[in-house]
Amino acid sequence: MRPERSDQPRPRSRRLPREVRERQILDAAVEVFAAHGFHTASMDEISETAGISKPMLYAYLGAKDELFVACIRREATRLIEEIGTAVEAGLRPEEQLWRGLRVFFEYVQRNQAAWTVLHRQANAQGEPFVSELVEWRERAMGLIAQLLARATADSAQPMQPEQVEPFAAALVGACEALVDWWFEHPDHTADGMAMRLMNMVWMGFGNLVEGQSWSPKRS
Amino acid sequence: MRPERSDQPRPRSRRLPREVRERQILDAAVEVFAAHGFHTASMDEISETAGISKPMLYAYLGAKDELFVACIRREATRLIEEIGTAVEAGLRPEEQLWRGLRVFFEYVQRNQAAWTVLHRQANAQGEPFVSELVEWRERAMGLIAQLLARATADSAQPMQPEQVEPFAAALVGACEALVDWWFEHPDHTADGMAMRLMNMVWMGFGNLVEGQSWSPKRS
Repeated sequence: MRPERSDQPRPRSRRLPREVRERQILDAAVEVFAAHGFHTASMDEISETAGISKPMLYAYLGAKDELFVACIRREATRLIEEIGTAVEAGLRPEEQLWRGLRVFFEYVQRNQAAWTVLHRQANAQGEPFVSELVEWRERAMGLIAQLLARATADSAQPMQPEQVEPFAAALVGACEALVDWWFEHPDHTADGMAMRLMNMVWMGFGNLVEGQSWSPKRS
Repeated sequence: MRPERSDQPRPRSRRLPREVRERQILDAAVEVFAAHGFHTASMDEISETAGISKPMLYAYLGAKDELFVACIRREATRLIEEIGTAVEAGLRPEEQLWRGLRVFFEYVQRNQAAWTVLHRQANAQGEPFVSELVEWRERAMGLIAQLLARATADSAQPMQPEQVEPFAAALVGACEALVDWWFEHPDHTADGMAMRLMNMVWMGFGNLVEGQSWSPKRS
């Protein structure tokens, strides 16, 4: 059993607030998991990278599998919050989608290790991490479905929940698959990746085969 | 070590060609893996369902993990071949995409157990199955990229490999995510699902928010 919170060991050198310490641990854990994969990653290396003793590491965030789940949660929350903040209610639908996609690809660029943990490691390690990830993907889809419904609320044909949900699911799947492609072709910029997806889902192949394409100048 | 091919046990009751026997085994394995998951699925149940002795099951397709990889390969090959056949070279791009998407969703509808093995089980079980799946997804993306390049070859702005590849990746991701949604909302038809994706990727949100939508009558 782990000790009660009040009995937990305190940081050795400096007394840091719990949130700060947990952030340091999670930053270190994301880095180590991304570099070595869940199985090979060692709690020794995570505690060294975080500059914290191993007993304290366990006391703060638990065993390796609990720590991995905490990484998934932290990164998924961050990403969803960043998208939610970027997509302001007053903007035109086109601008909302463009901003949402840019923020997504910029997040992935800035947090490649986090994305590797979220997407590749969590899938490759199987359960219980896949279920955790599925739950977070559903939250992301819910947010995007809301945004799509709001974006068409004033249009001639407002979309109903049942119409926007599958679009949101497809869009999330498209984003994830496109990031996999991006990791294999890292020369492209975050803006360039967001633009590809704008061309596909805003413009549509129908326009593309006729030689029309989307660019940020339009927005 | 497994015996050489010439030493392998023969079917008890009837002498069936090796391909027929393997097909029976794979059909049974897909069914059992989909129902119970990789870990819980037993070789006993697979051999019973296939109507074959357990030693023969091992002799034909190896241990459980090899059998699972064989299931992934068989189903992925089938799906890719069906799409390749449906999308004839002479058709207009719009019709090609519509047919490709319909064949995909019809395959999933007819082979729900196979899809569950391919997509959910393989991901949930981690390595080495995830790598096997990634390889097959890349083949699917390659086929779709070829189709997209061919579809725009005669247009004003033919798309280059570097342009079509990310679209193909995004489209595969969108299809997979949409199937997940479909499994949660099984009332929809395969045609209905294909139409949703046509609206998203052929028509584009830009047209949708203006009240335009795609229907098979157009094609």
